[in-house]
Amino acid sequence: MSQHCSCSTISRHHEFLREEVHCFPRFTHRGIPSPPGYNAPQQVHITQGDQVGRAVIVSWVTPSEPGSSHVKYWKDSGDGSEPGYKERYDTKYIYEIGDGDTARWFSFTTPPPIGPDASYTFGIIGDLGQTSDSNQTLEHYHSNTKGQAVLFVGDLSYADDHPLHDNNRWDTWGRFVEKSVAYQPWIWTAGNHEIDFLPEMVLPSNVVTKLFVLYIYRGKLFHSSHSCTGITPPTKHPKSTFPLWYSIKRASAHIIVLSSYSAFGKYTPQYQWLEEELPRVNRSETPWLIVLLHSPMYNSYDYHFMEGEAMRVMFEPWFVQYKVDLVFSGHVHAYERSHRFSNVAYRVSNGQCTPAYDKSGPVYITIGDGGNVEGIANRFTEPQPSYSAYREASFGHAMLEIKNRTHAYYTWHRNQDSEPVAGDSQWFYNRHWYPHEEP
Amino acid sequence: MSQHCSCSTISRHHEFLREEVHCFPRFTHRGIPSPPGYNAPQQVHITQGDQVGRAVIVSWVTPSEPGSSHVKYWKDSGDGSEPGYKERYDTKYIYEIGDGDTARWFSFTTPPPIGPDASYTFGIIGDLGQTSDSNQTLEHYHSNTKGQAVLFVGDLSYADDHPLHDNNRWDTWGRFVEKSVAYQPWIWTAGNHEIDFLPEMVLPSNVVTKLFVLYIYRGKLFHSSHSCTGITPPTKHPKSTFPLWYSIKRASAHIIVLSSYSAFGKYTPQYQWLEEELPRVNRSETPWLIVLLHSPMYNSYDYHFMEGEAMRVMFEPWFVQYKVDLVFSGHVHAYERSHRFSNVAYRVSNGQCTPAYDKSGPVYITIGDGGNVEGIANRFTEPQPSYSAYREASFGHAMLEIKNRTHAYYTWHRNQDSEPVAGDSQWFYNRHWYPHEEP
Repeated sequence: MSQHCSCSTISRHHEFLREEVHCFPRFTHRGIPSPPGYNAPQQVHITQGDQVGRAVIVSWVTPSEPGSSHVKYWKDSGDGSEPGYKERYDTKYIYEIGDGDTARWFSFTTPPPIGPDASYTFGIIGDLGQTSDSNQTLEHYHSNTKGQAVLFVGDLSYADDHPLHDNNRWDTWGRFVEKSVAYQPWIWTAGNHEIDFLPEMVLPSNVVTKLFVLYIYRGKLFHSSHSCTGITPPTKHPKSTFPLWYSIKRASAHIIVLSSYSAFGKYTPQYQWLEEELPRVNRSETPWLIVLLHSPMYNSYDYHFMEGEAMRVMFEPWFVQYKVDLVFSGHVHAYERSHRFSNVAYRVSNGQCTPAYDKSGPVYITIGDGGNVEGIANRFTEPQPSYSAYREASFGHAMLEIKNRTHAYYTWHRNQDSEPVAGDSQWFYNRHWYPHEEP
Repeated sequence: MSQHCSCSTISRHHEFLREEVHCFPRFTHRGIPSPPGYNAPQQVHITQGDQVGRAVIVSWVTPSEPGSSHVKYWKDSGDGSEPGYKERYDTKYIYEIGDGDTARWFSFTTPPPIGPDASYTFGIIGDLGQTSDSNQTLEHYHSNTKGQAVLFVGDLSYADDHPLHDNNRWDTWGRFVEKSVAYQPWIWTAGNHEIDFLPEMVLPSNVVTKLFVLYIYRGKLFHSSHSCTGITPPTKHPKSTFPLWYSIKRASAHIIVLSSYSAFGKYTPQYQWLEEELPRVNRSETPWLIVLLHSPMYNSYDYHFMEGEAMRVMFEPWFVQYKVDLVFSGHVHAYERSHRFSNVAYRVSNGQCTPAYDKSGPVYITIGDGGNVEGIANRFTEPQPSYSAYREASFGHAMLEIKNRTHAYYTWHRNQDSEPVAGDSQWFYNRHWYPHEEP
């Protein structure tokens, strides 16, 4: 049985860009069942379709044969749906995919225009997987009506924890997350479970090019916006055509996504791209500069301790120089929030290697507590280092409510609490517009 | 005009393995002229053809059309050449390639069998390029009759310093180095000038796979031994099929080659390969454990300072654990030798980040002074750090004379001196068999 995928972009010009996506065989039904009806669209999800949020990509899978690649969409006028293609910011749209009795309806709300005081609320989820803990996390987030988009910090389906990186797990995961990703965009980061290095499955001569294959190909399903339209104009920033590092703007935030498991040494494409991208950030337009990466640069758990050091020594000086507000990571299956600090004075023989308060330094948040399939990380390094503000081995997710150019309210929500309870909370002050010490 | 390449292996079974290699168009004659005669073989070079030195790969280019892919070879019996296929260790062979009046003769000497007291002398060259300084370096090395093979630490032709990474520079470089590489194997390391990231030359969708292309393809000409036979049995160590990191054994040395510009984070193929490779080193068989990489982990020049930090924090603990004897790097266009030390106690918040004497630590040698095309590196960081034993901004090369399982004599030769003069010299004691402090 083969599978078929569709990918359509609703652009500001109201045109459709259609793309047939190569997908994977061996489709079975497990976990969340497929929707009823022969060849009904499933694993529906939307992603941001350009760099500034004016386009939306709608993607889905039809399991048995190629289905329609059309998306019908119309503005939800509140007291009834208004047909047509009128597009606005901050506007709810209904969309329909599939034919006849397999047609399915979903909706999304366009973001506000890019602007320094555009308020916006991101959910933050990492290392989700598809366990009962994963389900609790997703239900929990889903029950919070504030979340408008998700910053996802890597490790999606954990298919590679199964024999031969069982591809079916990508399908079951696609159906599992549909309840959120069909309605709001998730901004994806590649984690170690997306590397998919399985040399016995490919010819040796092809090995060098066969990393991140499922993530990138499925990326046309589960990945951020390059897949159909490219994140930035290809003629202008060709280097951003690498699918594993990229940036988007949304409301008042500039989001930079990095790849912990690609090359990042000086002269490499990722390094060059980031070196060129950071000066492009316009804090008058997008005051909030947020970085997503999988392997935390600071972590005080006894799991994956110092695994992010190599990327830290390359990129931390830039994070401080460009006053990154927040760095979100996953990988460690627990929660940790740092103080605002830096550790960039080291010159090999000067002995200056102790993290210290720095008003230009980011706050580092590890939020790999989505559910995974490997269990919670519950051993700490002791004593708790001075840079670590709060750490707890509970599953959960976080919310970042950007209020304006100066203030954002951040909360962490543990699965064992009801959604309104915050296990950890913090007001963040913007590093460009209000670089004061937070309470 | 098209170019044709041939690649033949002389194996211990006296069989030929032939391979047609895809080469590159636009061939012109510059620098060292092509050999006389229509379609005469050029850019001839040999590489080690298996992991233990029992096979030799002979490669060459025919510029106009496919030529013969046959290699005739026979033992040089001293008082006349003995025809036939009798193969011995430590034996000189003559080989002939090309047809009729374009036939060309070269020779090589097979290494001694792998063994703990097999004496052997390696030349060490980095950042060679094809300038007059490059020519001095190569002539200098060539005039030293002790050198039996070269450890080359990256940056070969500098073709990428020319518009559109001018491919012709690879051809001129291939003719330039023929006088040595046709007679003894060079063990290649990829440098930043081999990355060849040129996004405007490839389609965006292909960018992700288009790094190191010329190095890898030319690798079938200029690369180490995988190209034809694979470094290790593919069924046993499939991960080593990546052409940018690999190992070989030769005489009493186990040589590990790493790639500074590929991913090396935990879980990446290079990291996994090295993690598995180091325990495979058998110091009773090959006492000398030598690592080659391009970007130095320790460097006190004001050029590329700390660029190798990211790989250092990942791999230095292993180098100390497995008692690597020597780490050779290039990249900095000058010369530096370190004391034997390590810096692996750092735990983010413990303040322990100062290099200190360690009898299990390697000596780090920067030898990127081959000639390049960008000039000498002549600014130091001051004061000279305690880990730096000797540094000098002169072009040159080095020799490592392994005497037995305990002792090796190392010399650095400046281009401005006559070859017998050593600008720097040091007896090295083997870290496994004789881990005493060197004089």
